[in-house]
Amino acid sequence: MTFACPPVSNRSSQEQAMLQAADYLIASQQSEMANLAQLRQTGRFISQVSQLVHLLQRERGASNIWLCSQGTLFADALALAEQQVSAALLQLDAVMPAATPHASHSRLFSRIACALYGLDSLTALRQQVREQRISHSDAMAAFSQVIHQLLALVFEVADSADEPRISRALTALFSFMQGKELAGQERATGSAGFAAGVFNAQQSDTIVALIEAQERSFGLFSQFADAQSLHHWQQMADADGDIERLRRIACTRGHSENGALRWYQALTRRIDGMKQIEDRLVTALMACCELAMAEVQTPQGAPVPPVPTPSSESWHGFWLTGSQPSAESDALPQPGGRSLLALVQEQAQRLQRQSDELAAMRETVQERKVIEQAKAWLMQQHQYDEQQAWQTLRKTAMNQNKRVIDIAQALLSVSAALSAAARR
Amino acid sequence: MTFACPPVSNRSSQEQAMLQAADYLIASQQSEMANLAQLRQTGRFISQVSQLVHLLQRERGASNIWLCSQGTLFADALALAEQQVSAALLQLDAVMPAATPHASHSRLFSRIACALYGLDSLTALRQQVREQRISHSDAMAAFSQVIHQLLALVFEVADSADEPRISRALTALFSFMQGKELAGQERATGSAGFAAGVFNAQQSDTIVALIEAQERSFGLFSQFADAQSLHHWQQMADADGDIERLRRIACTRGHSENGALRWYQALTRRIDGMKQIEDRLVTALMACCELAMAEVQTPQGAPVPPVPTPSSESWHGFWLTGSQPSAESDALPQPGGRSLLALVQEQAQRLQRQSDELAAMRETVQERKVIEQAKAWLMQQHQYDEQQAWQTLRKTAMNQNKRVIDIAQALLSVSAALSAAARR
Repeated sequence: MTFACPPVSNRSSQEQAMLQAADYLIASQQSEMANLAQLRQTGRFISQVSQLVHLLQRERGASNIWLCSQGTLFADALALAEQQVSAALLQLDAVMPAATPHASHSRLFSRIACALYGLDSLTALRQQVREQRISHSDAMAAFSQVIHQLLALVFEVADSADEPRISRALTALFSFMQGKELAGQERATGSAGFAAGVFNAQQSDTIVALIEAQERSFGLFSQFADAQSLHHWQQMADADGDIERLRRIACTRGHSENGALRWYQALTRRIDGMKQIEDRLVTALMACCELAMAEVQTPQGAPVPPVPTPSSESWHGFWLTGSQPSAESDALPQPGGRSLLALVQEQAQRLQRQSDELAAMRETVQERKVIEQAKAWLMQQHQYDEQQAWQTLRKTAMNQNKRVIDIAQALLSVSAALSAAARR
Repeated sequence: MTFACPPVSNRSSQEQAMLQAADYLIASQQSEMANLAQLRQTGRFISQVSQLVHLLQRERGASNIWLCSQGTLFADALALAEQQVSAALLQLDAVMPAATPHASHSRLFSRIACALYGLDSLTALRQQVREQRISHSDAMAAFSQVIHQLLALVFEVADSADEPRISRALTALFSFMQGKELAGQERATGSAGFAAGVFNAQQSDTIVALIEAQERSFGLFSQFADAQSLHHWQQMADADGDIERLRRIACTRGHSENGALRWYQALTRRIDGMKQIEDRLVTALMACCELAMAEVQTPQGAPVPPVPTPSSESWHGFWLTGSQPSAESDALPQPGGRSLLALVQEQAQRLQRQSDELAAMRETVQERKVIEQAKAWLMQQHQYDEQQAWQTLRKTAMNQNKRVIDIAQALLSVSAALSAAARR
């Protein structure tokens, strides 16, 4: 075995590597900015979707009274609502993302395709409503399906946003839109019941289920909303005396003189009030986008978090040392007075914190999704309605001293195994 | 109130909407393909990272023996290892993603910047090793830090991949690379102990902790690996008699004649064997990319899953109706014999299934991450070593009859609250 000194690379290749690291640091910051600009554009699109959904809810409401009154009420309102929906569609068209291939947009584009397909069915639906050739419940289901596709689009955007504050703002907005849509469905179900003079058992159960589902949606909203929007919502939620009286009548299958219009107007006031909060949430979302962009634009001004020195205990676990490159590497001083190392570390740490925050947030949203999927499975397998499905989950959890999410997860594992077995 | 028929849109605007839905469907498929092509390119990059990590581990091993033997052994091996690392760097350079802004690449680019910064520190490190001006443990820590940055890059790619099979293959690869790196660190620690003729308490504890950490990494690998790679790994793991004998000596602080070289050679055989399995995993990853691309290219050939008709119970919950647009909308027949509706549904459902699978997968990976973060916090706060931290978590969980993940989560909530309080 001969002795040979390992060769040492010369300085120029070291400088080249430094330059490369700086290139990727700049590319990382520029990518972050491009991503935020894209999120802001998507935010504008979602803002128009929110507007369109509101007007579709109004058209559904007017169609509802029109059909319940056998074509004697709300003809004007219906014509107006339809015009407003058409105008909103034009405005939406102006902010639609271009249908050009984009590596991270396959799900978004697919949701847009579904939503456009749904919107297209409106023409035939309106014809049937106008000629009263469709039942009240079928018409409501068809409108709700169109709105459902638009909400699914908003959910997709909320689910894929990867900046924590923007993702929170989108999740708050989506949850609120979902709650508002449930309120719209409550209005439709109640209008039919009051118009008929009496509620049947199914209608009463549906109202109860819709009220509970709204509570869950607004619960999720409350977890993610900004303090101001939440405050406005709490004030509004407190002032619902008349609605609560009418709800009691609906749920206990009572009857009320002139209930249909009173109900419709009370619920419409509530839904219009919700729209104002929704508009606040859209404004908050856009402000989040601007704020996040401003922070990336001035990374020099942001405080640099302290960097723990890697200890000898911590070098043998991947997760343990986190995202800090060795602070002992020699660092070229930069014109701005901060070393490239400090800048590289700052960027890596900021992105890591964002990633951790997002993961924690998604867990909350994911839990809710699992519970809803388990409920859907119970409804399908056992012909339960929504309320029965929810109470089954809740009671099982209480009896077994477990969380609802654990029961829901166990249930879905079983259902997946059953359908895998059925496919074989 | 006057009666007025609501106007009905004409057919041409309907056809226009249909066309738009088709545009977004095509854009969705093209985006999926662009995403897969990007993942395949990233897979090639990761394959070169795997090669570079292996050669860096070899250089660390040779440096280790060189330093432990006071410069009498492995000079040739050291020179050769350095040349091989340089060659691997050139090959990596050829498949590096371009440093141009890309909305979804900020984290990837930031990780690349960190990795390049780490690689740059090699020049100074090698000089110190060559001149024996660095302690064995400092040299090992410095090499491990460089490798850590490369592993963090692989983890980032695995974490952000959004096709479930590719994500699984990447997670299996990453976990395996992590386990192999822990084996490399075990080799370094053991070599130092055997070279000194006797292990001190800290070295023995480190060996025990590294063995346990390897088991956890390979456990995660086993959850996500393809059956063939797993089979090869199990065969290899079973045939470790000599290593187990030497490990026992190391852990019980015994001593062994000529142990250093025997240990080094046995562990090197093991690590080289692991590299063969790692190469299989890379091949499996690339096959996943090709398979996923082939499936998008022929969506016409894929079976369409049955679409449940929306029932009247299911239209009032967002999650309940899932991703199905109303099957009752009128559907234009397409040239291929399938309606646009069927195609739109198929695409939405496939992407939804992928999204659900990914969410379930990420939960597993996320749980592991939370546990490792809780361990790191315990190590930092209480000056525990890795083994003490892990046993504290495990014992607490057993005593409270809870899962380790629940304890880890509770611990991190407390630590977050404490550091928020400290900042105020």
